[in-house]
Amino acid sequence: MSPTSRRTRMPPDTRREQLLDLGVRLLSTRTLEELSIDVLAEEAGISRGLLYHYFGNKQEFHRAVVRRTADDLIAVTRPDESLGAIERLAQGLEAYVTYVEENYLVYATLVHGAASGNELLREIYADSRSALTGRIFESVEELRLTDGPALRLLTNGWAAMVEETVLSWVPQQQIPKEDLLTLLAAALPAILAAVD
Amino acid sequence: MSPTSRRTRMPPDTRREQLLDLGVRLLSTRTLEELSIDVLAEEAGISRGLLYHYFGNKQEFHRAVVRRTADDLIAVTRPDESLGAIERLAQGLEAYVTYVEENYLVYATLVHGAASGNELLREIYADSRSALTGRIFESVEELRLTDGPALRLLTNGWAAMVEETVLSWVPQQQIPKEDLLTLLAAALPAILAAVD
Repeated sequence: MSPTSRRTRMPPDTRREQLLDLGVRLLSTRTLEELSIDVLAEEAGISRGLLYHYFGNKQEFHRAVVRRTADDLIAVTRPDESLGAIERLAQGLEAYVTYVEENYLVYATLVHGAASGNELLREIYADSRSALTGRIFESVEELRLTDGPALRLLTNGWAAMVEETVLSWVPQQQIPKEDLLTLLAAALPAILAAVD
Repeated sequence: MSPTSRRTRMPPDTRREQLLDLGVRLLSTRTLEELSIDVLAEEAGISRGLLYHYFGNKQEFHRAVVRRTADDLIAVTRPDESLGAIERLAQGLEAYVTYVEENYLVYATLVHGAASGNELLREIYADSRSALTGRIFESVEELRLTDGPALRLLTNGWAAMVEETVLSWVPQQQIPKEDLLTLLAAALPAILAAVD
């Protein structure tokens, strides 16, 4: 059985998912601009026409790959609900930092592209940001904090701090990862202590 | 004496400075892209040719206006050296928030443009960020903190938090300005307390 006939027997959704996974992997060594339909077609060993069938056009393809990246980030940071709020925060942070280490280029593209006003990236970024901070807002009662505009402003501020700190730390590793995690986890309750 | 003859008697440097001030003022109601040489020429009542004489081209003009904005920000947040470190921080923060309130569009352009990788804006942004955080690093001994990579990472993280929080607060004013200032000022020592 040739590779082609094996591939064509897969359900279309599975094939599309595999192509997205390949796209995310290719982004570990390329910028989004360098990830063209041609590059994906060559790496996947399939025709450009089939890729256009799955993704419509290059912009839709990029949107789908970045969306997949954001979904992966949300999935790998999903906390173990049997843990307490502080442990969930620490666990989520560790998964987040590891994810950014392993997917640095595409994550930096997402954060910086969203800040620059790229609509495609801004929407995906906003969704992932609110999925991550939403977990903290759900823990507010357990943390004996008062939800409200001050807490929401500062929690988003802390998230911006984490993003910038981790994006600056990954290429330089100025301090041990364990110290980084401890400091970032300690910062949130320290910042929010002043809210009440 | 006609307005033109009065203007032409000014020394060139003063005229250029005035044009930059006008450029900064025009940015309170326009984006950087909307601020063309034509718009400035019309508002200043002088020829496009003279503006090209002062600024070379549109990109150099934009660089000069944004640089002036950053210089203004650094100047208005300059602390009273007779105060203690905590009071200087509080005073600098209040001046910063007021500045962002009054120059929202151009400041947002600077922050987001730098994040998007616009080289013109990135350099100016980096200079102003390091001028502002540099004042904190100079206060390290007085604050009985230990300078080092952890302190530098977290102080930059706090600066990112302040930027994002203030950029989100200005259009919505979710909490009173006084509360915002208190919370942001309290956040820095709270974050850095974990460093030692």
